[in-house]
Amino acid sequence: MKVVFIGAGNLATQLSLCMRKTGYEIVQVYSRTEESASLLAGRLDCPYVTSLECIVPDANLYIVALKDSALVELLPQIAASKSENALFVHTAGSLPMSIWKGYAKHYGVFYPMQTFSKAREVEFENIPIFVEADQESDIETLKTLGRSLSNVVMEADSEQRRYLHLSAVFVCNFANHMFTVGEHLLREHQLPFNIMYPLIKETTEKVLGGMNPSEAQTGPAVRYDRNVMDKHVRLLSAHPLWQHLYEEISKSIYHDKLRSEKN
Amino acid sequence: MKVVFIGAGNLATQLSLCMRKTGYEIVQVYSRTEESASLLAGRLDCPYVTSLECIVPDANLYIVALKDSALVELLPQIAASKSENALFVHTAGSLPMSIWKGYAKHYGVFYPMQTFSKAREVEFENIPIFVEADQESDIETLKTLGRSLSNVVMEADSEQRRYLHLSAVFVCNFANHMFTVGEHLLREHQLPFNIMYPLIKETTEKVLGGMNPSEAQTGPAVRYDRNVMDKHVRLLSAHPLWQHLYEEISKSIYHDKLRSEKN
Repeated sequence: MKVVFIGAGNLATQLSLCMRKTGYEIVQVYSRTEESASLLAGRLDCPYVTSLECIVPDANLYIVALKDSALVELLPQIAASKSENALFVHTAGSLPMSIWKGYAKHYGVFYPMQTFSKAREVEFENIPIFVEADQESDIETLKTLGRSLSNVVMEADSEQRRYLHLSAVFVCNFANHMFTVGEHLLREHQLPFNIMYPLIKETTEKVLGGMNPSEAQTGPAVRYDRNVMDKHVRLLSAHPLWQHLYEEISKSIYHDKLRSEKN
Repeated sequence: MKVVFIGAGNLATQLSLCMRKTGYEIVQVYSRTEESASLLAGRLDCPYVTSLECIVPDANLYIVALKDSALVELLPQIAASKSENALFVHTAGSLPMSIWKGYAKHYGVFYPMQTFSKAREVEFENIPIFVEADQESDIETLKTLGRSLSNVVMEADSEQRRYLHLSAVFVCNFANHMFTVGEHLLREHQLPFNIMYPLIKETTEKVLGGMNPSEAQTGPAVRYDRNVMDKHVRLLSAHPLWQHLYEEISKSIYHDKLRSEKN
């Protein structure tokens, strides 16, 4: 199976590296920016192109991992003048499969739900991969590909995938930003961030051990300890954006508590 | 050393259980609510009281773990008519040591920075414990106590402790709330929360492995992918509070990115 990667960002990097390790033949990498294209192609030991017209027409699988706006814009060109049997997939959580309709005969979605960085290699083994395709045979192809990389391969339609992605933004991107704010506040007061490691570890382990996050909630907001909360808001006076976040997240925590008490 | 616990909440429960296991003699538990008092006293195999006047006057150490507002209100009564050599400490991150001034001769703060639940036993071994006291000999007593429970015992003054606590709220309480929102959204769409475990694990491991959380940031907000963000905001239309959180946290993520690029 000859595979072309269109995009050379975090996800494309990690997915292509894992596929290569598993034995897939990556024949080409495309990225608009020369730097990204050559960097990834170097790691994969394959040629790269920076112009869409130069993408080989006879690959079996085209994996498109671009920013959503670029994907929608470039899709007609990507699918144009390729082999009729070629399978096109995108990796975007929030774009429906239907964007391929009318442009390709075989198409689908291959969505590995994980946070990828270029520099940090991830084990695909336990990453949930959600697949979707219009034709049964393409679903099978994507499932086989998925299973060769991970133990957790599931079908998900475009609607479910949207909510998977949205939840992932909260659970990963937004949780990580809370770490960022903590790190900044400590640094401003000459305290090292690694003092927080045991707390971060326990916070996660509670939830990974099966405790419902809503039940695992602790802190001033869930007790509605206005005393503490007012002090914290005052401490954040140099950071109006975080001050506002503090108020709003606290409100949401307390709101969730009241709701779960009602149920 | 005879120890009295004043308060029977999450922190008091876990700290007293650990101290008992380590060999300390817990002679009494106080809580205003009979249920909490008897539950903890049962686990510690010691007597309990629900009235402040009944607290024994001759203990060596009084550990006060109450909600901040209750602590400030009850403190004069707690310190009154106790042995002159008794050491009084509170465990609150956001209250200064000075609240004891004028009420007790020996006083300080013993702040284990962790998220505690009544039901989940924690290993104190790696929990950072921050101590503060007015007199050198009391600092030593608290350090000795701390070191008998944990490998990480540090002095921190009231100002540092305030920021430790504030950072802990972001890093633990607020991060956990992001898990809560994710769990709700998945449940509403018949998706099990445990699909998120690998993502949560990786998010945390990046940071615990030493990556700066700001550099570890991924997702639509850091790319400022307005396309995705607008879709997500629409998906949240049934949850105005979370919709607002989505916007504000995204703004803060992007703001942080711009700032770190400037530096």
